[in-house]
Amino acid sequence: MDSIKNLITLLGENAKNAAKTLRGATTVAKNNALINIANQIDQNRRSILKANKKDLANSKNKGLNIALLDRLMLDNIRINNIIKSLNQIANLPDPIGEITDLKYQASGIQVGKMRVSLGVIGVIYESRPNVTIDAVALCLKSGNSIILRGGSETVHSNHALYTCVKQSITQAGLNENCAQLINTQDRKAVIELVKASDYVDAIIPRGGKGLLKAISNSAKVPIIKHLDGICHTYIDKDADTQKAISIAFNAKTRRYGVCNATETLLVHSSVVGKILPELIAQYLAKGVELRGCPETVKLSNTIILATAEDWKTEYLDAILSIRIVKSMSEAIKHIDKYSSNHTESIVSENYTRSRRFITEVNSSSVMINASTSFADGFEYGLGGEIGISTDKLHVRGPVGLEGLTSQKFIVLGNGHIRQ
Amino acid sequence: MDSIKNLITLLGENAKNAAKTLRGATTVAKNNALINIANQIDQNRRSILKANKKDLANSKNKGLNIALLDRLMLDNIRINNIIKSLNQIANLPDPIGEITDLKYQASGIQVGKMRVSLGVIGVIYESRPNVTIDAVALCLKSGNSIILRGGSETVHSNHALYTCVKQSITQAGLNENCAQLINTQDRKAVIELVKASDYVDAIIPRGGKGLLKAISNSAKVPIIKHLDGICHTYIDKDADTQKAISIAFNAKTRRYGVCNATETLLVHSSVVGKILPELIAQYLAKGVELRGCPETVKLSNTIILATAEDWKTEYLDAILSIRIVKSMSEAIKHIDKYSSNHTESIVSENYTRSRRFITEVNSSSVMINASTSFADGFEYGLGGEIGISTDKLHVRGPVGLEGLTSQKFIVLGNGHIRQ
Repeated sequence: MDSIKNLITLLGENAKNAAKTLRGATTVAKNNALINIANQIDQNRRSILKANKKDLANSKNKGLNIALLDRLMLDNIRINNIIKSLNQIANLPDPIGEITDLKYQASGIQVGKMRVSLGVIGVIYESRPNVTIDAVALCLKSGNSIILRGGSETVHSNHALYTCVKQSITQAGLNENCAQLINTQDRKAVIELVKASDYVDAIIPRGGKGLLKAISNSAKVPIIKHLDGICHTYIDKDADTQKAISIAFNAKTRRYGVCNATETLLVHSSVVGKILPELIAQYLAKGVELRGCPETVKLSNTIILATAEDWKTEYLDAILSIRIVKSMSEAIKHIDKYSSNHTESIVSENYTRSRRFITEVNSSSVMINASTSFADGFEYGLGGEIGISTDKLHVRGPVGLEGLTSQKFIVLGNGHIRQ
Repeated sequence: MDSIKNLITLLGENAKNAAKTLRGATTVAKNNALINIANQIDQNRRSILKANKKDLANSKNKGLNIALLDRLMLDNIRINNIIKSLNQIANLPDPIGEITDLKYQASGIQVGKMRVSLGVIGVIYESRPNVTIDAVALCLKSGNSIILRGGSETVHSNHALYTCVKQSITQAGLNENCAQLINTQDRKAVIELVKASDYVDAIIPRGGKGLLKAISNSAKVPIIKHLDGICHTYIDKDADTQKAISIAFNAKTRRYGVCNATETLLVHSSVVGKILPELIAQYLAKGVELRGCPETVKLSNTIILATAEDWKTEYLDAILSIRIVKSMSEAIKHIDKYSSNHTESIVSENYTRSRRFITEVNSSSVMINASTSFADGFEYGLGGEIGISTDKLHVRGPVGLEGLTSQKFIVLGNGHIRQ
C-alpha cells in the first residue's frame, strides 16, 4: 500500500511541476508535441499492433466477449483515426490565455477574464486504447498535465502508445512529465490517485458504473462524472410525421451500445395513429425489441409490457421502451423522473412548446428536431471529447478543450487604488 | 441524529422541488420577489433591529470581541445597504436562459449553449446577518433554491430577516421553499447538509478555516471553496514610483481584516531605494507592523525579521511582510509557493513583464497597476458576490450570478439524423 501511495505522490509531484511549465508553453510547442505523437504513432504501427495482438490474445484467454474484444482491438484504420484526431486537435485554436469581456468599471479599472488550464488531470479508463492518445492530446492542448491509468486488458497497447507520447513531448521541448502513465495494474493506484487532492485537480473516469462507484467513495479530487445515458425522444402532437419517424428511428438504431442512444420514446397520444404503426414496423424490421406502456402494447402483440424498471434502464442494446403521454407536461414529468440528464430531444413544429421544452428540460443536451445521436464533442464542433459530463457544476455535456479549462479574472489599472 | 437527518432530507426534497418550479420562473417574478423582500425589510426595521439587539446582548455575555460584535451588528445604515443591494440585484440582467455561441455545424445542426441554474445551493455562514439576504437574492435571481444555515450568534437577526423573505417569495408567486432556513443550531445539521448530495448541488461556506475544515471531510456535495487570502503585490524594477507607493499602501491599509488585503509585498532590488524608504514611513505612520527579509530589515530598525511562517500567514491585521527579490522570476516563484491563489498584483510600466505576470501567475485574480483591494464582486461589475472562490473548477474569483449557474448544450435541427 505505502509503495503505491509513494508512487502516486511522485507522479503527482512530477505532474504538478510539469503543469507549471505547461502553463507558459507556446501554442506552437503544444501543437508540435501533438504532431510529433502522430508521426511517432505512424512510424511505430508495427510495434503498436503487435502489442495490441498480445492484449487481444490475453483477453480472449480470459474469455472477454466479442463486443469488449472489438473495443480494445486496433488495426490500421483505427490507428489512422487516432492520427487524424491528433492533427485535428493540433489545428484547433489554443483555448489558453484567451481574454474575454474586458470592460471598464466605474472605478476606472478594466476587468476581464483569462482562460487558464486546470493543472493536473487524472484520466482513468477502460478498454479502448485510443483514449490514451485522445486524452493526452486534449490535456496537452489545454495546458494540463495528465496522469493516465488504463485498464489491465490493454496494458501492452497503452504502453506502446505511451512510448510514442513520451518521446514526442520532450522532442517538442515540453517537460517529459506532462503526460505520465501509471505502470502498475494494482487497483490501489486508482484509489490513491483519486485521493491525491494535493496534486490532482480533476479526475475524468471513462468506464462503466462499476468504475465510478469504486472511486466515488474514496475521491477527494473533484470528478467530472458521466453517469448513465438514459436519453428520451418526445414526439409532440405537432410533430412532422416524417421527421418524427426518421429521428426516433435514428436515435435508437444508429448504434445501440452508445450513451447518446434514445432508450425511451415518448409519444403524444394524438399522433399515435399517424406515427407509431410505421415506426414500430421499422423498429421490428431492424430487430429492436419493444417494451411499452399499456396503451402502446395494444398497438402490436410483439410489444412487451414495460415494467417500472424499464423506464430507468440504460439498455445499451437493441431494446426500446415506448410510452404514450397525454401532454408535453406529462412527457417532461417523465423525463424529470427517469432521465439521467444526458440528452433529450423534442420533435415538434410548435414554436411555444419547442421553446418550453429546451428551457424546462434540465439535461446536459436538449434538442429540437434532431436525433439524440448528435450528442458528441465532434458533432458539436469541439474538435474532440474526453467524455460527456452529466454533472451540473463546471461543465455539462461533451467535454472538449474548454471543459478542461477555467477562467481567472484579470484587472488592468493605471495606478488605481480603491476608495 | 436521525431527526436532524430527517429534517435535512425534508428541506432537501422541498428545495429540489422548488428548484424545478424556479427554473421556469419569469424574470419579473424573480425580481418582484427581491423587491418585495426589500420592502418587507424596510417595513420591519424595528423588529429586525430588536432581534439583532438580542443577538448582540447574548454575544456580549458570551464574551465575543469587539470586531466580532461589529460584524453581527445591524443599524439603519446597514439595513439601508441590504435594501440597496436587493434592488441592485433585481436590476441586473437575468442570467438564466441566455443563449450563446449558436453556430451551424457541418451536419446542419445548430449548436449553442443555454445558461441554467445549478439547482439547490446550501449556504453555511457565520456572523454577518446581511449574508442571509445577499445569498437569497443571488440564488433566487440565478434560479437556484437555497438552504441557509447561519451562525448561532445571529440566530434572532437571521430569523427576523428570513421572515421577510418567506412572505415576499410567496407574494411574488414563487414556491415558498425556494428559500429555507435551517432552524436548529445543532452542528449535525451542517454535516447532514454537506452530505445531502441527492438534494443539494453545491455548498458555499462563508466563514473561517474552522468551518471549512469541519465540512470538508464529510462533504459529498461539491464545495465552492474560499481558502485564505494571502495576496501579494510585486513592485517591478520598471514600476512608476508614485503608483507603486499608493497601490502598495492602499492594498495593505484600506481595510485590514479582509481577504483581498495584501499580506506580502515583493520589491525588485533595483528600486528599493526609490520606493521603500517613503513607503515604510507611510506604513509606520499608519501603525502597520513590518516584518522583512534580511535585506529589508537593514532599511529600518523598526522592521522585524520575518520567519518562514510569515510568508504563509494571512495576517488579517495591521501587519505586512516585505521581501526584496532580484528578479520577477523570483517574485513569481515566491507567489507560486506561498500564495493562496486569491489575488496578486504587479506594479510595472514594462509591457513584456506585465503580460508575463498576468499569464504565469495562477491566482483567481491577477492585476496590473491596481490595488488587490479591488478583488470584489461589486468592483468587478458582478452586482454582488456570494463569496470568492480560490478553487480551480467551476468558478474562480468573486462568485456572482454567473458563478451560480452553468451551461447546457442546445441543438436546433430540422429533422436532422446522424449518419
